[in-house]
Amino acid sequence: MIEKLIAAIEAKRAPIVVGLDPMLKYIPQQLLEDSYGRFGETPDGAADAFLSFNKGIVDAVCDLVPAVKPQSAMYEQLGTAGEKAYAETIAYAHSRGLIVIGDIKRADIGSTSEAYAVGHLGDVMIGSRSFKGFDEDMATVNPYLGTDGVKPFIDVCNKNDRGIFVLVKTSNPSSGEFQDQKLANGRTLYEEVGLKVNEWGNGSMSGAYSNVGAVVGATYPEVGRRMRELMPKTYILVPGYGAQGGKGADLVHFFNKDGLGAIVNSSRGIIAAYQKPEYASFGAENYADASRAAVIDMRDDIAQALSEEH
Amino acid sequence: MIEKLIAAIEAKRAPIVVGLDPMLKYIPQQLLEDSYGRFGETPDGAADAFLSFNKGIVDAVCDLVPAVKPQSAMYEQLGTAGEKAYAETIAYAHSRGLIVIGDIKRADIGSTSEAYAVGHLGDVMIGSRSFKGFDEDMATVNPYLGTDGVKPFIDVCNKNDRGIFVLVKTSNPSSGEFQDQKLANGRTLYEEVGLKVNEWGNGSMSGAYSNVGAVVGATYPEVGRRMRELMPKTYILVPGYGAQGGKGADLVHFFNKDGLGAIVNSSRGIIAAYQKPEYASFGAENYADASRAAVIDMRDDIAQALSEEH
Repeated sequence: MIEKLIAAIEAKRAPIVVGLDPMLKYIPQQLLEDSYGRFGETPDGAADAFLSFNKGIVDAVCDLVPAVKPQSAMYEQLGTAGEKAYAETIAYAHSRGLIVIGDIKRADIGSTSEAYAVGHLGDVMIGSRSFKGFDEDMATVNPYLGTDGVKPFIDVCNKNDRGIFVLVKTSNPSSGEFQDQKLANGRTLYEEVGLKVNEWGNGSMSGAYSNVGAVVGATYPEVGRRMRELMPKTYILVPGYGAQGGKGADLVHFFNKDGLGAIVNSSRGIIAAYQKPEYASFGAENYADASRAAVIDMRDDIAQALSEEH
Repeated sequence: MIEKLIAAIEAKRAPIVVGLDPMLKYIPQQLLEDSYGRFGETPDGAADAFLSFNKGIVDAVCDLVPAVKPQSAMYEQLGTAGEKAYAETIAYAHSRGLIVIGDIKRADIGSTSEAYAVGHLGDVMIGSRSFKGFDEDMATVNPYLGTDGVKPFIDVCNKNDRGIFVLVKTSNPSSGEFQDQKLANGRTLYEEVGLKVNEWGNGSMSGAYSNVGAVVGATYPEVGRRMRELMPKTYILVPGYGAQGGKGADLVHFFNKDGLGAIVNSSRGIIAAYQKPEYASFGAENYADASRAAVIDMRDDIAQALSEEH
């Protein structure tokens, strides 16, 4: 799978993923009114507005970026109506040629973790036929339960040519409470997790990189540099660019000398760009064009930072 | 919330939760045929079979136990059809007077974690009206992201009188890879997490215990004893009884001297009891009666172990 992602990144010259994390406050009034008009001010109406909003953004950016990353929490808050919009968002992004990274941060143990893996990255067998659940190409996974939680995902990835990104060092301020704990062996917990990610990846190589990636937040560039060394063949999904404070210059540490090895996510900074002063002139009705402009600016910011570095 | 759970445990004299983790291989042929006959051998058919199966078990055990714990992974593997069965299972358990613990093991950061919390334990606002998503009473939460991941759940719990159980030491064999890591401060990671759970609970007391519970596996009784000391006012959800090897005698360490402080989960051992030699005489058609018998045996096993201890 990671070879496919790399090919798409190279084709579009953009190591960028757009986070599809809709919130009602981001959605232009006209779209909300259309959806509420059809489904009422209900979860069905809100879910329909999420889907319409996402489609506009997908249409506007699909020639520029290799991938989108819908955040399952935003859909799940709308209950079953939201889950349907999540599935339809994935299908629509696929129809426009995009790779889909499900930001689900799931993990459990044994057959339970396998059920999550199957539902998101594999096929479920019912009688003699197989069906897709949510059908993402890649998904984020939480490491707290150890190999028992992650291995079922890797097995499903190997069977179906899919990939995962395991949380190593998250972008949030309190990520250090546990992840930065110094262990008796001299390493931090996130280093210990990163070494395990590297090891897990040995069993799932796809070209020069493995299908077992890692999440390391843009807000911790020094950690990015360190983890780049400890996990040389691990692709790093980097959240925290833009709204959370990460800048292009912070990102160079997450990349290898081959210019590969990282893909940077921005969610709010792209999908709600029209609400920011620098893109406000687009107007709410042209929110998708504002998102497109924000993607181009992000792409150029990262490209410039990388060209100055190398 | 935890006061309500304790009242139900005391009323039924059973610190037991039944895990509703359906798998197709547990479901009697007749139920499968009924559902497939109506919906085909499809995700809708499988989801309908899950729901019918769950209803039978809920009906058979609802006078014996305070709570059920549906495992979201099992439903999620069926995609949107499964999510609907998950929501309907919760609603049906509520209609039979049961407390529902959603075993979702979610966590993210900030507004994203809040979205999960709202979708499972709170209300989502759409226009001027509020709606429930999945509407569990309590949910399991993963601690890896620190306070940023957990606090939004606690805030939603405080607003809606709900509760959570944070993963501290999970029941699986590889839980030690990260959770048992010795920290430079002399504690293990699970102790560090447990102390944080205790601290988080200070802001969410409900009688003698807090609404911020912990998950500690039955398979690690010594850890149970230690965590009982470190988190005196924390309710412990104990998985791993039965199929995973935990026995009644292992469980006494998880309880306080008041006979409270823990609730023990069994999933496969109850819901697939009719497939075990000791309950096989019930026959597949009476699977729910077999589950009832298994609950009674489990209740008596735990009661005997506790009476020998105290």
